[in-house]
Amino acid sequence: MKQKLKIAILGASGYTGVELIRLLLSHKQVEIKSLIADSNAGKEIAEIYPHLAPFALPTLKKIEEVNFAEIDVAFCCLPHTASQASIKSLLENKNHPNLKIIDLSADFRLEDGADYQKWYEHAHIALELQKQAVYGLAEINRNKIKKAKLVANPGCYPTSALLPLLPLIENNLIETDNIIIDSKSATSGAGRSIKLGNLYCEVNESMKVYGIANHRHTGEIEQEISKFSDKKLQVSFTPHLVPMNRGIISTIYVNIKKGFKIDDIKNCLNTKYQDEYFVNISNTHPSTRDVVASNFCHIGIFASRLPNQAIIVSVIDNLVKGASGQAVQNMNIMFGFDEKEGLEFLPIVP
Amino acid sequence: MKQKLKIAILGASGYTGVELIRLLLSHKQVEIKSLIADSNAGKEIAEIYPHLAPFALPTLKKIEEVNFAEIDVAFCCLPHTASQASIKSLLENKNHPNLKIIDLSADFRLEDGADYQKWYEHAHIALELQKQAVYGLAEINRNKIKKAKLVANPGCYPTSALLPLLPLIENNLIETDNIIIDSKSATSGAGRSIKLGNLYCEVNESMKVYGIANHRHTGEIEQEISKFSDKKLQVSFTPHLVPMNRGIISTIYVNIKKGFKIDDIKNCLNTKYQDEYFVNISNTHPSTRDVVASNFCHIGIFASRLPNQAIIVSVIDNLVKGASGQAVQNMNIMFGFDEKEGLEFLPIVP
Amino acid sequence: MKQKLKIAILGASGYTGVELIRLLLSHKQVEIKSLIADSNAGKEIAEIYPHLAPFALPTLKKIEEVNFAEIDVAFCCLPHTASQASIKSLLENKNHPNLKIIDLSADFRLEDGADYQKWYEHAHIALELQKQAVYGLAEINRNKIKKAKLVANPGCYPTSALLPLLPLIENNLIETDNIIIDSKSATSGAGRSIKLGNLYCEVNESMKVYGIANHRHTGEIEQEISKFSDKKLQVSFTPHLVPMNRGIISTIYVNIKKGFKIDDIKNCLNTKYQDEYFVNISNTHPSTRDVVASNFCHIGIFASRLPNQAIIVSVIDNLVKGASGQAVQNMNIMFGFDEKEGLEFLPIVP
Amino acid sequence: MKQKLKIAILGASGYTGVELIRLLLSHKQVEIKSLIADSNAGKEIAEIYPHLAPFALPTLKKIEEVNFAEIDVAFCCLPHTASQASIKSLLENKNHPNLKIIDLSADFRLEDGADYQKWYEHAHIALELQKQAVYGLAEINRNKIKKAKLVANPGCYPTSALLPLLPLIENNLIETDNIIIDSKSATSGAGRSIKLGNLYCEVNESMKVYGIANHRHTGEIEQEISKFSDKKLQVSFTPHLVPMNRGIISTIYVNIKKGFKIDDIKNCLNTKYQDEYFVNISNTHPSTRDVVASNFCHIGIFASRLPNQAIIVSVIDNLVKGASGQAVQNMNIMFGFDEKEGLEFLPIVP
Repeated sequence: MKQKLKIAILGASGYTGVELIRLLLSHKQVEIKSLIADSNAGKEIAEIYPHLAPFALPTLKKIEEVNFAEIDVAFCCLPHTASQASIKSLLENKNHPNLKIIDLSADFRLEDGADYQKWYEHAHIALELQKQAVYGLAEINRNKIKKAKLVANPGCYPTSALLPLLPLIENNLIETDNIIIDSKSATSGAGRSIKLGNLYCEVNESMKVYGIANHRHTGEIEQEISKFSDKKLQVSFTPHLVPMNRGIISTIYVNIKKGFKIDDIKNCLNTKYQDEYFVNISNTHPSTRDVVASNFCHIGIFASRLPNQAIIVSVIDNLVKGASGQAVQNMNIMFGFDEKEGLEFLPIVP
Repeated sequence: MKQKLKIAILGASGYTGVELIRLLLSHKQVEIKSLIADSNAGKEIAEIYPHLAPFALPTLKKIEEVNFAEIDVAFCCLPHTASQASIKSLLENKNHPNLKIIDLSADFRLEDGADYQKWYEHAHIALELQKQAVYGLAEINRNKIKKAKLVANPGCYPTSALLPLLPLIENNLIETDNIIIDSKSATSGAGRSIKLGNLYCEVNESMKVYGIANHRHTGEIEQEISKFSDKKLQVSFTPHLVPMNRGIISTIYVNIKKGFKIDDIKNCLNTKYQDEYFVNISNTHPSTRDVVASNFCHIGIFASRLPNQAIIVSVIDNLVKGASGQAVQNMNIMFGFDEKEGLEFLPIVP
Repeated sequence: MKQKLKIAILGASGYTGVELIRLLLSHKQVEIKSLIADSNAGKEIAEIYPHLAPFALPTLKKIEEVNFAEIDVAFCCLPHTASQASIKSLLENKNHPNLKIIDLSADFRLEDGADYQKWYEHAHIALELQKQAVYGLAEINRNKIKKAKLVANPGCYPTSALLPLLPLIENNLIETDNIIIDSKSATSGAGRSIKLGNLYCEVNESMKVYGIANHRHTGEIEQEISKFSDKKLQVSFTPHLVPMNRGIISTIYVNIKKGFKIDDIKNCLNTKYQDEYFVNISNTHPSTRDVVASNFCHIGIFASRLPNQAIIVSVIDNLVKGASGQAVQNMNIMFGFDEKEGLEFLPIVP
Repeated sequence: MKQKLKIAILGASGYTGVELIRLLLSHKQVEIKSLIADSNAGKEIAEIYPHLAPFALPTLKKIEEVNFAEIDVAFCCLPHTASQASIKSLLENKNHPNLKIIDLSADFRLEDGADYQKWYEHAHIALELQKQAVYGLAEINRNKIKKAKLVANPGCYPTSALLPLLPLIENNLIETDNIIIDSKSATSGAGRSIKLGNLYCEVNESMKVYGIANHRHTGEIEQEISKFSDKKLQVSFTPHLVPMNRGIISTIYVNIKKGFKIDDIKNCLNTKYQDEYFVNISNTHPSTRDVVASNFCHIGIFASRLPNQAIIVSVIDNLVKGASGQAVQNMNIMFGFDEKEGLEFLPIVP
């Protein structure tokens, strides 16, 4: 019997870490070898998450307690900045030259140091690695991901925006100077950080806008769409916070280029994604519950009342396709597994 | 002591009806004389809404049991179609020539019969009344409302969109051919109708888009903004359903006309609303909870990353400023009361 | 390769039906052959539940369109009354003598016709079958379930109450004349029926009590605990409705019999369930999210401030261990599969 | 015209503080003179709570910046311990001998120093004041409150339990050795403290039990009911956390004393509360939304299936009748105002 892949999760006690545990425990070709959570080292993860009590999982450790020579792939669920430091140190260590890393933070998504500094407001300490990292938007960059040593797992908002936008821009179907992305995210997108704004009574029964014109994911979206243009593109991206646990819905307003119609938009996305298991072109109004707790992305395409405007609506689960699920999908690509392995969960409805 | 105004509420057992009761019970110059709810006639309203048990309120009646000669103003909370029939009959009755009506349905908002037929898919039966009705957007149409016999209370989405848009269009500050209104509404906007899509487990923990390019409130928005243009304007209006009880947040994307800047937008709205108690130009990110259970509208104005684009965000409580609260405000205007009377509730936070 | 078990689901479009689909699609030894939903016959299930669009599933049919000779096991998710009629007709039909049925309704849970009539207020039409049916509380009745042709899948509240109570009563550890079960259920327990009380705005942001002293599940609980007593026992069972989609938490107050202590209670349940995968004796405060979307039951045992009182708290997901999950578990027992097959989902947190 | 009462709020930026602001702004005989919030001193309260932007309110100050000689009554919304220190210092200061204080913390609710030390795990520093303080359960202690200089405003859970229990114990209608109080509270009961367990994603879509047999409010309940007994009574009190903003529902199981019946229970409470505006004996199943955002308490009384057991269900809004509303009611009693003044809000439904 083939050896199972040995996995470490750094930052195992956050929401993306615990979601990785959920997915990987059902993955038949991997074994969770190490769970790393510095501030909780020594504890069982079930002390933090009682729902994990029925499952055999390694005790939480500090990073220095782990022998990475025994690890095939490390998922990094640390906050940005912390992430680049850990990953630099792991990848420069010659004791485990074959270690691969999938980083769920933002640290290796931006290719350009200056860009990183602008959006994250401090200098990047691993610029070389930044260049080698592959942006892990699975359906788009599959071939590069296959050979990657370091995958930068995309942000949740960018995943919801780029899956519909990139094929349309690549095929020159839409104007690129007035793209509007109006996104609405569930609260788990803010992670498990203990902040006033994340308190139940601050979030519940309210919807709010935030980060207008300056949310960090803007840089990531603009970088990726600009690859299909000869100029540096800018978008209008506006995130909102929704009182629910999981899900992103992005409503995207684009102008169709002269000579094309709404059906060209539909055909383009249908063609692009017809063989993609996780991307579903929908002929109904998308709802975040259609994808909750699953790795699916549903995309609906609609004609606007305004001439030549298309309205494209995409939904994902921010913790799955927008984070840990896509990370597992990337691992499957990197190691030649069936891309669906560990991800064949149906959405939870209701 | 001055006589109190005598009030009847038609459709008293729906959400806008019961919200009117909440507001009017605190209004010092009115008396709720009749509650009309055909299917529940004979019951006490507290049998349907136990929270009203501590309050003295009239027994629910059928419309034919009410002597409207004793009524000064009737609030009509019936569904559209039903509304026009009842109102036509009430206003044509010569036994009570002084009766005034504030209609919370959509039946008298559109001025043009053909327009009504297009959006509501059946012929209007009271075209004459339709012409006399005043569109009750209080801060905009105050002078007409003062003299109105029939006020068409605006829809919730239109209220949230028109308050920020109308002054900008009137002052020629924005382009009018590419206005995008991305609105998110709480579930009470759907009323108390017993439909699958309104079930708790269908709505909770999900956010969805609906009515793209064909929501009926589009007609109302377009009619009102077109009054400040020499052509019939069209907008891109996309509503979404949010898992919460109350609140609308509308994120509006507009292009600033050449020669103007974001500060001109801000100044225009600040000037327009500086003396308006219920409209607050905010310098922070609006949140629906800032206005929940109150008659306030908060408006935030932001520069986009896209050149010349402004992003304007407005929040209201759909049942108050978006329905029953504005109806009471309109009554106050019609009868010369202090406009705040019955509406001096603070938002409920948390 | 061994033939897969052929499955039919009657009432496939309700919440327990669609939850069965979720579980059975991941079950390696079964195939969903027929989905039956009379009022929606002819439609694809994905028209009703867009989240199922990515999955190959049979078109919805009427019951008379299905050849049950091709079916090994039918799950019946019909409302009570409708259930007994369908099941009687299916089991009396000689064309498919080997058909087995797992009924998720209440129709075959009560063994006594008079009891059924008292709680459900009409006569049972299949009293003979009622006697043959096995009460499918998996961990308790496993041996009987193995040989059953008709399994009456337990109610959600009874499952949460009986798993902790039965071993304690069987072992004579607690008084049986003053058992208090204070249960709190999520809203999916009410099913997908379109009723005023199930509307989002009626349920959200409120908690209420209902069915005090007369909820139908009382009969089921009393029947099962009375089997371990020489008299007909009665319990005080009070259900509450909680604004969330899934989960039941039952807080059970019992008096410990003279001569025993809280540790005897703990030991009894620990011993009973030590080898049961799905029942977890917890040493922390149970929370419904610890089991949400999974087949687990967590039970916590606490000493009260009152002398000799134990407080036992159990949590389940009402749609899984409280309905469809236990139904799959019962199927696994009936057909000799691994009891965990199709049920190895982790809870969804957050 | 009579001078308005001058008010200071200590701890104005917490949830009970901001709720006091909501209520007092509508109170015709008071003026909010000082808002004290040490860590936010210098800010406007609208910077913290944008919903207060439309209202004229004093800038937040440190306590030492306030001249209490200008204050008639101070509401203290500080955490326990901090509260006793501030109140001791204020009441011992001879510059403002007429200052009255209503303390919303737990610091002056327990009359006995040892009791306080047991439940709060540190010594009380103002034992003398503790003895003078009046327990502010308005409907029960009205006469004492009238003359009080320091009122200890009751806890939210105790208010919901004591209003129904005290008259029954006083009238010897129920057994006192096996009272069970199963309470369910909304999340605002935890205040605005920034803790992991209060995060949205930790609370939402889950219900949990906590503090079994050791919640601090137990001491308060036991102290008050013991006043009607010749021994120190103990109760079984179990709190649960519900995913909603506001509301407590307490389901109370009591045994009726021999010779009495359920109707005696009903009559007793009906008689006690027939003239109390804020307490409503309900003949339907109580729901927290029946009282949300209001100062009402609804109480339902039901016969159990168990002989001689009564099930009493009470609902309050934890932030109003369970905190700030009752504090205002107490102020009204202390200063001879109409007890309803500032509290005539209807519940917000939906």
